[in-house]
Amino acid sequence: MDRLDYSPHDAIAALATPWGVSALATVRVSGPGSLARLAPLFEPAGALAAAGGRCTVHGRLLDPEAGGEVVDEVLLVVYRAPRGFTGEEGAEIFTHGSPAIVRRVLSLLSRAGFRQAGPGEFTLRAFLNGKLDLTQAEAVNEVVRARTDRARALALHRLAGSIEGRIRELKEQLLGFQAAVEVRIDYPEDDLAPELAPAGELEACESALAGLAATYRVGRIYQEGVSAVLAGRTNSGKSTLFNRLLREDRAIVSEEHGTTRDYLEGTIALEGIPVRLLDTAGYREAGSAVEREGMRRTDAVLRGAELVLYLVDGSEGLDELDRAHLEKLAAGGGQLIRVWTKSDLAAPSAPEGFLPVSAASGAGIEELCRLMAERALDGAGVQAGEAAVIDSQRQKELLERSLAAFRGFRRGLAAGLPLDVLAVDLREALDALGEITGEVATQDILQKIFSTFCVGK
Amino acid sequence: MDRLDYSPHDAIAALATPWGVSALATVRVSGPGSLARLAPLFEPAGALAAAGGRCTVHGRLLDPEAGGEVVDEVLLVVYRAPRGFTGEEGAEIFTHGSPAIVRRVLSLLSRAGFRQAGPGEFTLRAFLNGKLDLTQAEAVNEVVRARTDRARALALHRLAGSIEGRIRELKEQLLGFQAAVEVRIDYPEDDLAPELAPAGELEACESALAGLAATYRVGRIYQEGVSAVLAGRTNSGKSTLFNRLLREDRAIVSEEHGTTRDYLEGTIALEGIPVRLLDTAGYREAGSAVEREGMRRTDAVLRGAELVLYLVDGSEGLDELDRAHLEKLAAGGGQLIRVWTKSDLAAPSAPEGFLPVSAASGAGIEELCRLMAERALDGAGVQAGEAAVIDSQRQKELLERSLAAFRGFRRGLAAGLPLDVLAVDLREALDALGEITGEVATQDILQKIFSTFCVGK
Repeated sequence: MDRLDYSPHDAIAALATPWGVSALATVRVSGPGSLARLAPLFEPAGALAAAGGRCTVHGRLLDPEAGGEVVDEVLLVVYRAPRGFTGEEGAEIFTHGSPAIVRRVLSLLSRAGFRQAGPGEFTLRAFLNGKLDLTQAEAVNEVVRARTDRARALALHRLAGSIEGRIRELKEQLLGFQAAVEVRIDYPEDDLAPELAPAGELEACESALAGLAATYRVGRIYQEGVSAVLAGRTNSGKSTLFNRLLREDRAIVSEEHGTTRDYLEGTIALEGIPVRLLDTAGYREAGSAVEREGMRRTDAVLRGAELVLYLVDGSEGLDELDRAHLEKLAAGGGQLIRVWTKSDLAAPSAPEGFLPVSAASGAGIEELCRLMAERALDGAGVQAGEAAVIDSQRQKELLERSLAAFRGFRRGLAAGLPLDVLAVDLREALDALGEITGEVATQDILQKIFSTFCVGK
Repeated sequence: MDRLDYSPHDAIAALATPWGVSALATVRVSGPGSLARLAPLFEPAGALAAAGGRCTVHGRLLDPEAGGEVVDEVLLVVYRAPRGFTGEEGAEIFTHGSPAIVRRVLSLLSRAGFRQAGPGEFTLRAFLNGKLDLTQAEAVNEVVRARTDRARALALHRLAGSIEGRIRELKEQLLGFQAAVEVRIDYPEDDLAPELAPAGELEACESALAGLAATYRVGRIYQEGVSAVLAGRTNSGKSTLFNRLLREDRAIVSEEHGTTRDYLEGTIALEGIPVRLLDTAGYREAGSAVEREGMRRTDAVLRGAELVLYLVDGSEGLDELDRAHLEKLAAGGGQLIRVWTKSDLAAPSAPEGFLPVSAASGAGIEELCRLMAERALDGAGVQAGEAAVIDSQRQKELLERSLAAFRGFRRGLAAGLPLDVLAVDLREALDALGEITGEVATQDILQKIFSTFCVGK
């Protein structure tokens, strides 16, 4: 872990709230000797030493190298090991929310021997001190980055140990099978049941592993969202619908122009799923080189989208160009939603498979939003507050590794392979689960996980 | 105070840290019944009621309307009246730093009957509850907005009561004069000293009032800074010096492009003074209409600047255009600093009154910075950590009103006006001081002061 300097013996410090002018800012410190380093910077003298764990102390931070100048009036929460988030002694310092003050406090702490904390280093210490398993540590980051209320709820469940609990159950099942294998290896002469375990138990264990791995897709959808592209001929009503959808949503996450001038984008939340909306250049008969380039980019955007809304101007109806595009899009990878726009105008009724909407009157917009959310989840919806849903590619890959090894074990069992061969597969299935919760974790793995965190977390 | 709905009987809530993804966020609540409103939202049940003042409680915020769903794991500091910042019962809630969580917590609090706090409303309550006088309340805002370390130090002194203390001294002196006037009105027959007070005392009081009012300019300079414009012919080295100054400063406050394409701007801190640097279009013989428009804008920027750095290319020397501009600028309002650039090139030595600098080698840059800071303060420097320096136009205007009334009193005294006339002037001088500290404060005054604060402060 030298690259990020995550030495667990240092006292560390970092700003835990965003930079900016505000009422309050919070600076966090943790590690051996934190309170002894803070004490000479704090007035009234002796107050820190006297403070109980988790009690607040009101006072002033002083800069001894500036003749004891007052840096700020602060409130300080003292933590004593093994309590508090990191399980180490430490403190949270609540200062006035001025960047000038935060800069000065961080410089003061640095001169007092605190090292600037690396990304996620407070959470890493909580893990190293046994306060969290690795799935909970990852959930700390996922909670902070949750963009919708549903993502927040799912991440909080992970933080509370929902994944850790499921992994523990799976491990207990695997350990049961392993014990059965080992007892047959050690006591081959004993009169044991011919079957290692009931077939139903083996089947249930395999589906549980597969089911948990499959929740990754749902976790990703709630956390990272999907992209939805509006396509259609020029004047099919794309921009109007784009603006209507952005306005409809009460919890707009962001609204900005695309990085190129070829499309606009904005993010909305539909039933808890962040949906990145892209409004592309309209299709038209390819004309100039510039227009052909625009079409080429639209096609690239379409290929990457989870949802494609193809709009047909209901007051004009389908034409050959529409039919050609719809055929191509239906064969593509994204979910295709056919939209019949301008339904408020006196127009032919929508053909089979088209959803009539009017951005002007709002008719059909609610149904469109519901349909987009349903298609985004592709029927794989989960109830917030109930399921354990993973949101970490690392966990998904380890679950798949465990699943592959367990399937190998079952195949070997069916083929009558020797018990010591079966034991190897079971051991691998167990090790992969142990790596998920961090019982088996190398410094490289930890580095990779925690380097994606915010500093101060 | 109806306009901003600052009713002191409500329980109020607001985010106190900036919006953004981070480790922690702080939501503040205060007011009668705050803890009773929070209690049903908090688990473990009963923990809030049992918590002592200023102690932290660890638990979960629940949403009763969502079947008791966990909104976040939180740490909560409980305040009981009259302790804590506002002097009311209240709490600070430390949540994970996710905008999704903060939105949900604020909605939860709103449904529990907390009103969204107005700007500065927590500080307003601290004032109303006698925890701060009005100069200290204003200092809370000044501390948060301090852009340099010096501004921070001066604002902290005000928060600690430096202005309040000086005003109290001044009032005691004025009260002494008032008592002397009144005893002569009430007991005209008594054999009192012919003089109300020694002339030296009256003189000292007047200078103290005038001196404190005059510190306003210094306070403004440290808090708001000055602007410095780089002017000179094209190719005189303006952009190079501009970039060098921005790079030189270790505490760059911001660096952005100007709102028009006519000049660049960036802010640096020189000896604690925020200096807004502007790099203008270069002077040249007026050519096209566009160029003349550029020159017109440069002139407008120059007229508004406190500092003007006029650059002459030392390798080329002064020409007639330079002489004409220098003459015009010397007659203008800003402080003019003459800079002889490219001093590293084999060039004639700088003429009298010019500072030789080389942006390439760095020679002269430090001296230029020192000179800019000195000219910005115009000799009116104060020692941080010592002086009481005001930074509020309101306080300055009231001090000037008090000073004017006191001068009226002295003139009347010298002219032998009747004692009851003198008493009116003294009363006015005293009232103006009382308004500074908030002993006399109407709702309009409070509204005006606190509406400039951040929400959550």
